[in-house]
Amino acid sequence: MAHIALPEGLPGIRGLMAFRPETAKPLNELVDVLLRGPHSLSPGERELIATYVSARNECAYCQTIHGAIAAHQLGGNEELVRSVKRDFGAADISDKLKALLTIAGKVQIGGKNVTAADVERARGLGATDLEIHDTVLIAAVFCMCNRYVDGLATWAPEDPEFYRQRAAIVAANGYAASTAAPAALAAK
Amino acid sequence: MAHIALPEGLPGIRGLMAFRPETAKPLNELVDVLLRGPHSLSPGERELIATYVSARNECAYCQTIHGAIAAHQLGGNEELVRSVKRDFGAADISDKLKALLTIAGKVQIGGKNVTAADVERARGLGATDLEIHDTVLIAAVFCMCNRYVDGLATWAPEDPEFYRQRAAIVAANGYAASTAAPAALAAK
Repeated sequence: MAHIALPEGLPGIRGLMAFRPETAKPLNELVDVLLRGPHSLSPGERELIATYVSARNECAYCQTIHGAIAAHQLGGNEELVRSVKRDFGAADISDKLKALLTIAGKVQIGGKNVTAADVERARGLGATDLEIHDTVLIAAVFCMCNRYVDGLATWAPEDPEFYRQRAAIVAANGYAASTAAPAALAAK
Repeated sequence: MAHIALPEGLPGIRGLMAFRPETAKPLNELVDVLLRGPHSLSPGERELIATYVSARNECAYCQTIHGAIAAHQLGGNEELVRSVKRDFGAADISDKLKALLTIAGKVQIGGKNVTAADVERARGLGATDLEIHDTVLIAAVFCMCNRYVDGLATWAPEDPEFYRQRAAIVAANGYAASTAAPAALAAK
């Protein structure tokens, strides 16, 4: 049971966003810019970073929904998402993304763990300053979201099909849209 | 030296916000709602939560600027801010705020550390669901900001007077205003 009284039927961060729409609005705008805005990293790659950090923080809701969105955006490749969570060094992703995931993993522990050598390695594999910046901020944002979702003891559905269906809605409509009109989207 | 090329002269998160205004906008809106919006916790109390979490994450820039803003909003009481960072249990603050700081400290470690007993204790001392929600989200937001600022190795001025002057500007104008028009504010 959640630590505070939340609207029923909305799992994870969604119940919190319905409880506090004033903070939901900038949170969704931030995540839309970072994960869905125009970028040299694909939406699927950016969702993999979010999923990896959420898995390291052991946040069941976040790692499952963002893993489902990543898979959706990577052509339904759920095995790729599992392989990134298990051991990204052995996953079928670019060396640049592996270097960025190394940085994201260090941010998850604490910002000071990122070294100049980590950044130089990513840059040597083609990462731009914007990609490095956004990797750090995506990792930091999910350290926030994971603490928000678990710090208030929200619930997470267990059925993987729930997340697949939700992922398709978020991929089509974006994060801000999905909380702005939950009734309309629930009817889809 | 920062890990990426940032505009010169802007310390901490401000250089990052100038580098990436698209993410700066929702970040500032979020912090304005949480720390300055209408609330039963005073702006000074909410800045103390932000300062305490930033101190636990050892983020020099965030704990110093938010400590200065807290002091500014608490009638210039810098000793109160120091006492909260040192040992909030012995500080001259309400028992309710002490219970909320206990929750914030657990969120800093990880969301799952917050227990039903922690929340019940805060509620028994008068905390509302909104205060509990916002305490968790403020703590989570600063776990993000601290990682963002330190993960990209930004610089922090050492002169306490810099932070006092900046605190007065932020207290008067808000977070969003301070990055929306840096040139105009610098001229003040």
